[in-house]
Amino acid sequence: MDDMLSGPPAAARIADLRRELRARDLDAFILPRFDAHQGEYVAPHDERLAYVTGFTGSAGMAIITAETVAVFVDGRYTVQVANECSGPLFSRLHIFEQPPEHWLGAVAQAGWQIGFDPMHLPPGWFDRFAASAVQASATMLPQGDNPVDAIWSDQPPAPTGRISVFPMQWAGRSSAEKCADLAAYLSEQDAACLVETQPDNIAWLLNVRGDDVAFNPMPQSFLIAERNGTVTWFVDPAKLDDEVKDHLPDIVTAQPVSQFLGALQNRCNAGERILFDPDFSPVAVRHTIADAGATAAAVASILTRTKSVKNPVEIAGLHDCHLEDGVAWVEFSAWLAQTVPARAAAGEPVTEREAEAQILSCRQARPGFLTESFQTISAAAGNAAMCHYAATNGRNAPIMPQNPYLLDSGGQYDTGTTDATRSYAFGMRPDGYDRAYTAVFRAFHALATLRFPRGTQGHHIDAICRRPLWDLGLDYDHGTGHGIGHRLSVHEHPQRIGRPYNPVDLVPGMVVSIEPGYYEAGRFGIRIENIFEVIEESDGFLSFRNMTLAPIQTDMLIPADLSEDERCWLNTYHQDVLQRLSPLVSDAAGRWLSAATAPI
Amino acid sequence: MDDMLSGPPAAARIADLRRELRARDLDAFILPRFDAHQGEYVAPHDERLAYVTGFTGSAGMAIITAETVAVFVDGRYTVQVANECSGPLFSRLHIFEQPPEHWLGAVAQAGWQIGFDPMHLPPGWFDRFAASAVQASATMLPQGDNPVDAIWSDQPPAPTGRISVFPMQWAGRSSAEKCADLAAYLSEQDAACLVETQPDNIAWLLNVRGDDVAFNPMPQSFLIAERNGTVTWFVDPAKLDDEVKDHLPDIVTAQPVSQFLGALQNRCNAGERILFDPDFSPVAVRHTIADAGATAAAVASILTRTKSVKNPVEIAGLHDCHLEDGVAWVEFSAWLAQTVPARAAAGEPVTEREAEAQILSCRQARPGFLTESFQTISAAAGNAAMCHYAATNGRNAPIMPQNPYLLDSGGQYDTGTTDATRSYAFGMRPDGYDRAYTAVFRAFHALATLRFPRGTQGHHIDAICRRPLWDLGLDYDHGTGHGIGHRLSVHEHPQRIGRPYNPVDLVPGMVVSIEPGYYEAGRFGIRIENIFEVIEESDGFLSFRNMTLAPIQTDMLIPADLSEDERCWLNTYHQDVLQRLSPLVSDAAGRWLSAATAPI
Repeated sequence: MDDMLSGPPAAARIADLRRELRARDLDAFILPRFDAHQGEYVAPHDERLAYVTGFTGSAGMAIITAETVAVFVDGRYTVQVANECSGPLFSRLHIFEQPPEHWLGAVAQAGWQIGFDPMHLPPGWFDRFAASAVQASATMLPQGDNPVDAIWSDQPPAPTGRISVFPMQWAGRSSAEKCADLAAYLSEQDAACLVETQPDNIAWLLNVRGDDVAFNPMPQSFLIAERNGTVTWFVDPAKLDDEVKDHLPDIVTAQPVSQFLGALQNRCNAGERILFDPDFSPVAVRHTIADAGATAAAVASILTRTKSVKNPVEIAGLHDCHLEDGVAWVEFSAWLAQTVPARAAAGEPVTEREAEAQILSCRQARPGFLTESFQTISAAAGNAAMCHYAATNGRNAPIMPQNPYLLDSGGQYDTGTTDATRSYAFGMRPDGYDRAYTAVFRAFHALATLRFPRGTQGHHIDAICRRPLWDLGLDYDHGTGHGIGHRLSVHEHPQRIGRPYNPVDLVPGMVVSIEPGYYEAGRFGIRIENIFEVIEESDGFLSFRNMTLAPIQTDMLIPADLSEDERCWLNTYHQDVLQRLSPLVSDAAGRWLSAATAPI
Repeated sequence: MDDMLSGPPAAARIADLRRELRARDLDAFILPRFDAHQGEYVAPHDERLAYVTGFTGSAGMAIITAETVAVFVDGRYTVQVANECSGPLFSRLHIFEQPPEHWLGAVAQAGWQIGFDPMHLPPGWFDRFAASAVQASATMLPQGDNPVDAIWSDQPPAPTGRISVFPMQWAGRSSAEKCADLAAYLSEQDAACLVETQPDNIAWLLNVRGDDVAFNPMPQSFLIAERNGTVTWFVDPAKLDDEVKDHLPDIVTAQPVSQFLGALQNRCNAGERILFDPDFSPVAVRHTIADAGATAAAVASILTRTKSVKNPVEIAGLHDCHLEDGVAWVEFSAWLAQTVPARAAAGEPVTEREAEAQILSCRQARPGFLTESFQTISAAAGNAAMCHYAATNGRNAPIMPQNPYLLDSGGQYDTGTTDATRSYAFGMRPDGYDRAYTAVFRAFHALATLRFPRGTQGHHIDAICRRPLWDLGLDYDHGTGHGIGHRLSVHEHPQRIGRPYNPVDLVPGMVVSIEPGYYEAGRFGIRIENIFEVIEESDGFLSFRNMTLAPIQTDMLIPADLSEDERCWLNTYHQDVLQRLSPLVSDAAGRWLSAATAPI
């Protein structure tokens, strides 16, 4: 981000953009943070929102008019936007309380022309803006070439991350088999083809991985899968080497990304049913299908669902990389326990960024490790109460022994993706910390040990996790669990454990996190997170099998608050961690591990 | 039902109806069990489905064509429909697996005219049938006068149950105040008026009660509430006496039911927004509004929501009648414990119907008791495994001491409505009964003791109740809890505790049942049910406060399966039951009560 913000000052960029909009006869321009793939991370090339407004959060939207630049963010970013978009150039608004389409509907005048990039706006957003525009007698005008690109003189190029083959030994199922399954599904659905715009679904289908955006190892690309089994993959040819070309099944043809919409338009015939995902596709896909006279059928991508149920090879790979990740956690935790008090005593406390570097270095020592799987949250004291804290850009607090510390971190490995959180204390703790820590552990245990029948969905079981906190009048304002990819996105659809309705059955082979927490603003944050696979038990009920191997600190558990079941479960978990990790860790970490896993 | 089925045989009725349909140029007729109010109970006058098909279940639908009479029922009634609609006249279908609209779409031929009664079909059903008809190039033809009525020579007259005033001392809020609140709401919503077709909402708004259908003390009627505060009540004048007329606020005008749709049509002006409930109104309401050029705004009735949050007077009344109901439960339970073994030993066992009469007689001895609040489920041994069993029409099993027994029963009292279930055993129990009974008690306890934050909805907490059963690989195939009326319907919308999505926050003043169970086909059924109000605790969290006072039999609880919390909770509950009921029960019942509530 630093690079991008080194160009002309915000006022100059906004003036440039307004000039460009006037040249296009546009009275307003809708600028979301989305790229064409609606992911959480975008390439520097696609950081248009940050370039124009300076706002660097992972979600948000701006509307630029002649009068103002309205920046809409959710509750996570209200503080950040006030810092990054201060001053009279901007209006700062809450994206749920003052929805952008309502705001635009109120300021737009009859005859206004409202520009948007149809590759960066999902259909739901487009429909809401279009309805507001109709009310205001204004017109929505798609901009084939993005006006921000026209004024961004030092815009980084579109990413050309190398694509690599993801071998059968880790994928467990060939791309040809997956494509055949997809063709059979399209026949069943009486659909001519499926338009896929989610890079992780494409990477999974073709058994490839990429390197276009941070943390998420999949290539930005598009794909059209035909009912006859053939597949057209729209991908930058510069990313493809001969090994990848040789790997692709014959049924797959590669074409440049630039031909995606044109090819879609050409292949659509009147009366055909074309599947697209209404939540993740750019609206340009729907418009292209409709313009060609075919039926745009809004159906959540079958690949999202198929990919979520891991095959036995994928599951085995995930267990393998969690073993390596566990070693890194133990090495890190042993270092932290020793170094935090020693360095504080020496007047040179360990900092958050130093700890972040340390866990990365512990992972880099493990075979198969590739990169971090998301922006590490390394947070001391009150910083841990901010659920998405990152120690960057000048924020780098010391980790003092009298304050608790939280680390939420994960890795991409050859055979899978990891994500775990541990909360640490170093002796003294703030009032109320132990009570809350014990409740968070009990919440974690409550869901980790659940047995449940088929047909159970994430929103059914979220409260089972929260109950131990609710008993004390506590709660946490985030979800309880998310899906996780197999060397893909660390947050993977469609299953989710949380309060919002999620009509997806949890089925064997799905992999989810369980991560209750508790946060006191300015004081501390607590979270315990492991990854679990859903398995079937002998009586047909389902349960969670643990993947994450890292001790859960016991000092802060209040014995009287624990049931016998909870105590025994933790001791059994720790015995498992000890037995599996002790042969793999250093001597110093081994001594720490033995103590950390001692029965309570 | 016996009366109705005493007319001509089924074949003759169906032949009559087919003749009538031919005379109307209809190729098919859609005959749901619904009356114009979509309630669970209908008057004998409206038992058209039973008259034509012989099917007497509480939900279902038939489609009559020249070829067949297709009867669609849900899983509760598949056995019953096979008995009641046997033979070649009928096709028997599962209403979810073979939806009527799909079936009709498949059999209908181009040009077919499909009849339906627009007062008996809700909009959702109509829309699905209409879509199928379009696909088949058929036409939906509303029948203003129902063709079944034309052939039903001895059809009972429409009910004319006397309407009575529901006094302020029990209602807690005057009808004039409620109507003023409603007018304010209509202004807020920018709505011209609200069309109300649910009799319990109307009874609550006008502070009246009625006597048109079994168990549910509200008058069948319709109502239009205007934004200016005036109300038109469409009700049979024969039901109104001077006391009721004097009671009604001046803003309320009564008109005959027959003028409902005409008056609605006349009052609608182009451009006006008219609120109707899409889930409970007949489609005729929507069509009438649209035909008049106004906007039919599909919005769940605000009265359903307002009524669900009981005011302090209503809550106090509910506690009062639960005290009286508790006395009846204790008298009954004491009688049952003594009489079942004695009569079995004498070779004249107590029967299910006799027990049903006994609990009624115990209630009739209580001040304020009016009628039963639903069809009692008095079920011995394997009969209790049928969740909606009724000992009627020749079914009347003996209650033997070696078999468990289940009673689900409730009353309408001056000041409220009750509903409770207890499971009894008399010494010997089948294998596995105690383990399941203990789990059902633990399930009941788990939800009864929950604390939860505002924003919690019924589908969030259902699994909390099921978990103790899930732990053993057990479950139950019904909801966990329903709302209950205040001297109104025993099943009251909108809140519900169950797996299906129910987007209604549980808020203080709502009243719900908690009723987990476990059922083994042919062997036994177990259920424990109490009524609870939702209250706010001092820290802002919500919880359930118990209303039902009746001992929960302890013999079958396996001590080792109970936690200390569960044991203490039950002892505290029983102390409360003992203290409040012992002054009110007979000496014999008092001795039984002391033993039944002894601490475990």
